[in-house]
Amino acid sequence: MKRYLVKPGSKVNLSKVPTKDDSMFPDESKETHLVKLDELRQSMQDHQHKFMAAASHKFLVIIQAMDTGGKDGTVRHVFAKIDPAGIRVVPFKKPSEEELAHDYLWRVHKEAPANGEMVVFNRSHYEDIVAVQVKNLAPERVWKKRYDHINNFEKMLADEGTKIVKIFLHISKDEQAERLRKRLENPEKRWKFNLDDLEDRQRWDEFQKAYEVLIEKTSTDHAPWHIIPADRKWYRNMVVSKLISDELEELEVELPKLSFDPSQIVIED
Amino acid sequence: MKRYLVKPGSKVNLSKVPTKDDSMFPDESKETHLVKLDELRQSMQDHQHKFMAAASHKFLVIIQAMDTGGKDGTVRHVFAKIDPAGIRVVPFKKPSEEELAHDYLWRVHKEAPANGEMVVFNRSHYEDIVAVQVKNLAPERVWKKRYDHINNFEKMLADEGTKIVKIFLHISKDEQAERLRKRLENPEKRWKFNLDDLEDRQRWDEFQKAYEVLIEKTSTDHAPWHIIPADRKWYRNMVVSKLISDELEELEVELPKLSFDPSQIVIED
Repeated sequence: MKRYLVKPGSKVNLSKVPTKDDSMFPDESKETHLVKLDELRQSMQDHQHKFMAAASHKFLVIIQAMDTGGKDGTVRHVFAKIDPAGIRVVPFKKPSEEELAHDYLWRVHKEAPANGEMVVFNRSHYEDIVAVQVKNLAPERVWKKRYDHINNFEKMLADEGTKIVKIFLHISKDEQAERLRKRLENPEKRWKFNLDDLEDRQRWDEFQKAYEVLIEKTSTDHAPWHIIPADRKWYRNMVVSKLISDELEELEVELPKLSFDPSQIVIED
Repeated sequence: MKRYLVKPGSKVNLSKVPTKDDSMFPDESKETHLVKLDELRQSMQDHQHKFMAAASHKFLVIIQAMDTGGKDGTVRHVFAKIDPAGIRVVPFKKPSEEELAHDYLWRVHKEAPANGEMVVFNRSHYEDIVAVQVKNLAPERVWKKRYDHINNFEKMLADEGTKIVKIFLHISKDEQAERLRKRLENPEKRWKFNLDDLEDRQRWDEFQKAYEVLIEKTSTDHAPWHIIPADRKWYRNMVVSKLISDELEELEVELPKLSFDPSQIVIED
């Protein structure tokens, strides 16, 4: 998995990072990957089951991407076998009036995972730098301070027992055009089309630049970024599944200790 | 599905209601049901996908049962294919100090579903009648009023667009003994064993009686109870899957209307 990890302190040039790749699963294809993907999901399910029982760690997945980057699809496909009792997916949409009346991390902190809980952020506090910056929603002196806030916030979460996995789904501008067109053509998907996405597309380069700086400044030892080639959905699903499964496994959680001697217990009829 | 529905106003005698049955899927067995179960889950997934997109209704599933009745397993198996972004499972455990300082519906109301959201209560406000009554945690004059409170509360939820599906997983006392013994024998499951369950088991008859009155008094037109034979896990999973799938289908939701003309939109390269 190291190939997609952004080493803390390294420079990021998104135009040099592939959006199409198959190097992790070179023998698979769109046609043949489903069996392997299902094995990865099963492995994730097994680890997550123990993780939930142990209730000793917290697990936070943060997913960011350009529009149509595949955030919803990744959630749907990668976490398809997780026990719904053990996962919470939190979409961060445009903040409400009450949320805007607070600091930007207030609504985020409320959704942080508890012990034994896996939480997936679909968008996150990173929009409070990237979107705010590109769409000019707040002056630079405001959002510039947020890199440090976020690093400090995530450090605290990590110190208190949260495993943080940050994922940037990296697609090309051509792939976005194709996905937007498909969305418009398909009567079942058309309702998902958002006119605002076209405005954001015109600022593609600004967004990419903002993400580069963001990833450089917030890929830390306690919460590094992974840039996942995401033009091919099947490959993206496999890589993210492997990543989550590995991270869960590395926690090496233990089932809770018993507070009683099972041999002394009698179940009466 | 009508066979397990408790008609509003009818009497309930749990000892006369089967805990073992196969009348809904007479051709299936523990060995052969998986294909059919997967079809039911797929159907549920399709309906739920549209339900989520429509975001016009709210969906609340309430699951109650005796200890080892299969609440966790039902959640895990029945909702195995639901998009994790569209479901929230809420376990109601022993109330916290803050929760106890409020009325008993306060913590419940906070977890009510929003439009397009499916929420599953693993235990619920019904514990505030049954457990409170049998374990004598509050005087009768307190819990006696709660049947009406709950009927009124659920009526309001239903009037405001919530589909409420209430499920009692019905197991026999013998089946409970077997499950408790298995839990103790299996090193992977042993940690789940709770000594309090043995105390509750000694009050089996009191619990059954309390559930009978509860179901009689709170099976309403807007939120009826279903008593599901749950000694056989595979059959329970199939019946509950069918029930949820049917209820979702009956909502007849519509995809959101478009606010633009797709033919007028050009995606530039």
